[in-house]
Amino acid sequence: MGAELPIDVEDVRAAAGRLAGVAHRTPILTSRTLDDRVGARVFLKAECFQRVGAFKFRGAYNAVAQLTAEERARGVVAASSGNHAQALALAARLHDAPATILMPEDAPPSKRAATEGYGAEVIEFDRYASDREALTADLVAARGLTLVHAYDDPRVMAGQGTAGLELAEDVPDLDAVIVPVGGGGLISGCAVALRAAIGGVRVVGVEPAASDDVARSLRAGDRVRVEVGRTIADGQQLPTPGAVTWPVIAALVDDVVTVADDDIVAAMRFLLERMKVVVEPSGATSLAALLAGRVAVPRGGRVGVVLSGGNVDPGRLASLLGG
Amino acid sequence: MGAELPIDVEDVRAAAGRLAGVAHRTPILTSRTLDDRVGARVFLKAECFQRVGAFKFRGAYNAVAQLTAEERARGVVAASSGNHAQALALAARLHDAPATILMPEDAPPSKRAATEGYGAEVIEFDRYASDREALTADLVAARGLTLVHAYDDPRVMAGQGTAGLELAEDVPDLDAVIVPVGGGGLISGCAVALRAAIGGVRVVGVEPAASDDVARSLRAGDRVRVEVGRTIADGQQLPTPGAVTWPVIAALVDDVVTVADDDIVAAMRFLLERMKVVVEPSGATSLAALLAGRVAVPRGGRVGVVLSGGNVDPGRLASLLGG
Repeated sequence: MGAELPIDVEDVRAAAGRLAGVAHRTPILTSRTLDDRVGARVFLKAECFQRVGAFKFRGAYNAVAQLTAEERARGVVAASSGNHAQALALAARLHDAPATILMPEDAPPSKRAATEGYGAEVIEFDRYASDREALTADLVAARGLTLVHAYDDPRVMAGQGTAGLELAEDVPDLDAVIVPVGGGGLISGCAVALRAAIGGVRVVGVEPAASDDVARSLRAGDRVRVEVGRTIADGQQLPTPGAVTWPVIAALVDDVVTVADDDIVAAMRFLLERMKVVVEPSGATSLAALLAGRVAVPRGGRVGVVLSGGNVDPGRLASLLGG
Repeated sequence: MGAELPIDVEDVRAAAGRLAGVAHRTPILTSRTLDDRVGARVFLKAECFQRVGAFKFRGAYNAVAQLTAEERARGVVAASSGNHAQALALAARLHDAPATILMPEDAPPSKRAATEGYGAEVIEFDRYASDREALTADLVAARGLTLVHAYDDPRVMAGQGTAGLELAEDVPDLDAVIVPVGGGGLISGCAVALRAAIGGVRVVGVEPAASDDVARSLRAGDRVRVEVGRTIADGQQLPTPGAVTWPVIAALVDDVVTVADDDIVAAMRFLLERMKVVVEPSGATSLAALLAGRVAVPRGGRVGVVLSGGNVDPGRLASLLGG
């Protein structure tokens, strides 16, 4: 069955080779206070310290690195108002490739500025009146650009999985690893790496309850589409699992649980006050699930938690935490 | 001359042995954005991730670990409203020793609660009406307690110096290291470790301009006493260098520079927004000096920066950053 999946552990290892010396090998943070609260040893993989502030850099760089010289010269494109926009902009700049990013016109000015700061051209669109898939396809056709999808691309998935590979290398014998789930690129890459490295490890995904498409799809045994509700976890507001990530998730992820916004805020507060780390709402869903008791961990066991990103404006952070 | 100093590198190495597996080996954080701004490669030693949120744990633990069984049974005492209070409380608990902490009655309730949370007895005093040295001496005499001073103790200095030892081990060939200076325990221990490990390394201290006793003392060639002004850097509001730390500073520290509160806020903002790390005002003075151009670093050189602690309430953080 493994041969049918779009990536295997060799793809993740090859990505790690491309990322060596380019991406940060992010640290593992631990806390006795956290261990005591959970009743297990907890290892936080701090991807908030990754370049551009999130794991997305790993995938974007691994994809751009595999383009031909001709493809790079023509440039890359993606539609994103989030971390993938900055990640692809930086990955392209590091390869001297032009990047075009489609952003909704109501995207936060700070995200647009950061993306342009990495040298990308930003094209605005009306998220209510326009079809972003069609706009992207038009740019691909008109300009000969290569689409680097935020998650539904084996090169992106393998690159994102290097976070899990590093976690397995740094912390042997994990009983479980908890990973935020949006489109599924991170968890599919991590599941491939972790399953190959650690016999019997459980891989558990976390979604906001307002956007629980992957959890429902796992229960249904097939991709389902949900209506996305309001949530502070803006990196995970997707209606359905990725077409490419889904088979990996279905094969290798043990469970996907959900958290409420209050759980996420509590986890962000713990991370800020006790761990001195800024983690964005989506990035904190993994710890939120653990702290809220949504993931069964063996007493005294060892659990890895991927904190996937830290891009939250100080003003929003203050208002979320009631500061 | 080295033989006359209260500690040498063997004391720091012995401290590192005692702290192995007990203190965190805190990570080194890097950022291309920061490197570009400074024109050098910058290595941030993130002691905000240390146990109790600051380097103070290293010194307190190393001191308590060297007490006799009888001394431990009687207990330890210190006067502190800051990070040393929590550090000594935890170090004592880990050695099954009772801890008594003298705190001014206007200390933040969160600091008192954290100290009591580690099992210490807190005794309040009126910081305007009482002499804390006399109160401490009374407790030492009446209860047979052992004083563990926040900085003026060779065991504390050697323990705090393990932060510098780790930095030298993790980042070879540093041209300069920048360290916040309060009473001088951290910089004296770090200077001893760094000088022994890296030939020609410059060790530069940073004080808030409102409390520049060590900078003035270095210029005067002897300890001077200053009137401490208002500053947000509450961990460094001391009128004169420590009697025990001073000779080490005079012998091994190249320079001590000062920063304004605005510089500190700018550094805290950079750390929060770009590095995703919470650092308290005193802990950010080192980076503040670098960003404000107060420390000469060779173009393309390598500079270590000790971020000494992260204990700042989210509300205060928000108000300092205008969030």
